[in-house]
Amino acid sequence: MHIFDTIDALREHLNQQKKQGKRIGFVPTMGNLHKGHLSLIKQAKAQSDVVVSSIFVNPTQFSKGEDIERYPRTLEQDQTLLIEQGCDVLFIPEVQSMYPKGELTRVSVKDISAKYCGASREGHFDGVTTIVCKLFNIVQPDVAVFGSKDFQQLAIIRHMAKDLMMNIDIQAAPTFRADSGLALSSRNGYLSEEELDIAPAIYKTLTWAKEAILNNQSQAKIEKDAKAKLTEAGLKPDYFHICNADTLQAATKDDTHIVILVAAYLGSARLIDNLNFEKQ
Amino acid sequence: MHIFDTIDALREHLNQQKKQGKRIGFVPTMGNLHKGHLSLIKQAKAQSDVVVSSIFVNPTQFSKGEDIERYPRTLEQDQTLLIEQGCDVLFIPEVQSMYPKGELTRVSVKDISAKYCGASREGHFDGVTTIVCKLFNIVQPDVAVFGSKDFQQLAIIRHMAKDLMMNIDIQAAPTFRADSGLALSSRNGYLSEEELDIAPAIYKTLTWAKEAILNNQSQAKIEKDAKAKLTEAGLKPDYFHICNADTLQAATKDDTHIVILVAAYLGSARLIDNLNFEKQ
Repeated sequence: MHIFDTIDALREHLNQQKKQGKRIGFVPTMGNLHKGHLSLIKQAKAQSDVVVSSIFVNPTQFSKGEDIERYPRTLEQDQTLLIEQGCDVLFIPEVQSMYPKGELTRVSVKDISAKYCGASREGHFDGVTTIVCKLFNIVQPDVAVFGSKDFQQLAIIRHMAKDLMMNIDIQAAPTFRADSGLALSSRNGYLSEEELDIAPAIYKTLTWAKEAILNNQSQAKIEKDAKAKLTEAGLKPDYFHICNADTLQAATKDDTHIVILVAAYLGSARLIDNLNFEKQ
Repeated sequence: MHIFDTIDALREHLNQQKKQGKRIGFVPTMGNLHKGHLSLIKQAKAQSDVVVSSIFVNPTQFSKGEDIERYPRTLEQDQTLLIEQGCDVLFIPEVQSMYPKGELTRVSVKDISAKYCGASREGHFDGVTTIVCKLFNIVQPDVAVFGSKDFQQLAIIRHMAKDLMMNIDIQAAPTFRADSGLALSSRNGYLSEEELDIAPAIYKTLTWAKEAILNNQSQAKIEKDAKAKLTEAGLKPDYFHICNADTLQAATKDDTHIVILVAAYLGSARLIDNLNFEKQ
């Protein structure tokens, strides 16, 4: 695996690959890789000749008071996992390379960036779209793969890529879950043994809500009951919304492609998850 | 000259050119081309194998109440001029192609977009950076040429390209002037015969101010006197600022690369101009 920490060196390497007609796949990450990330690498590898992954804990997507300082950094272990998975190129830039002194530009997807996680984490999605835009411009991939666990992020990145006419195939990979149903996340590392027993209530509540939706129960009641279930299990729900999976607006009775979005606090962690499905 | 009105057709054509190793030059315009625009085409042609120009009157860079409806559209004449100048490709998209229903993304360069013309024209520069970002992603040029008459726009586009890690050489072309000193602009077409006699006072005031700066006169007094000169000539000054040409902040006594930025109303037109020079 080739490892680069400067933009110029990465570009030079990729230019050589592109000149040979190689198709570039890209998986941007914040590191502390788990099986979910590795499934993204696998999916990218199946569709490209050269898979590039990046590890960068992006400061602009952390809101004030959030966990940037203690966000888990496990570079050595990440490198081993990426090599095992067959990743070809790893990009690990410094913060000052991605945000040099005096930089002023932000990329924003209006409206959908202000909802849900965007409402709880001010500026979060502008930070995400800005860094992803920078990384896309550096790597210029043919295909980029993102995890479905961050469903709102995925929708926003798709929107950005479409709106800004980026010639990149944005793909979703399924959420990777533990046997308990808990969605894999670097932030699960913040959970105590006891909290790890509580956390699967999130997925359990999502599957319960899906059944309730398919049984045509009232949407408002489902959302209210779901939050009660989360609270009862020992979580502190941030939001629980039943949405149109394409627009992320509150679902109407005519919508068929549904996503349930949830965020909840547990101990010092803020966990998110979602379930999307077709309703006839 | 190849003419395309869809993104896909343009992309397909340019992909063929790029596969042959051709270097792409790009000159985005709003049409109603004059000698200034043609000098940009010439400059792009000198440094690339294929010159692409676009004509698109971009709605998002017009503020409320501005001149988008009456902005001069002279496509047939523009095409003739571009062919004569040796332009290879012309892109003339519809508004709904560049801003399809539901699009939500904006690219903003903070701080410098809020000053000067940005202060008088709310949202103007966000509209400029958004459309230029879209066009860059469609054309993916090696080099793009912009006129120096729009000095603040040029500085903002350079900033965006650098901040977003775009791999594009952003070049400035000198301002093209009539014998009277008046900077060529599509908006000069709004001027009456009488106003055309008044307008050269802008450049005259710029050259006067440059001399006064080189003679170390007080910056505040120069700005004040310059506005008085414009008013006396029959213009209504919007702003007149002596700035650091790189940062566009108010110039300090240590700055050596200076730009004087001016905007003034004349009849139904808002005219801008600038003069940049080295001070020892």
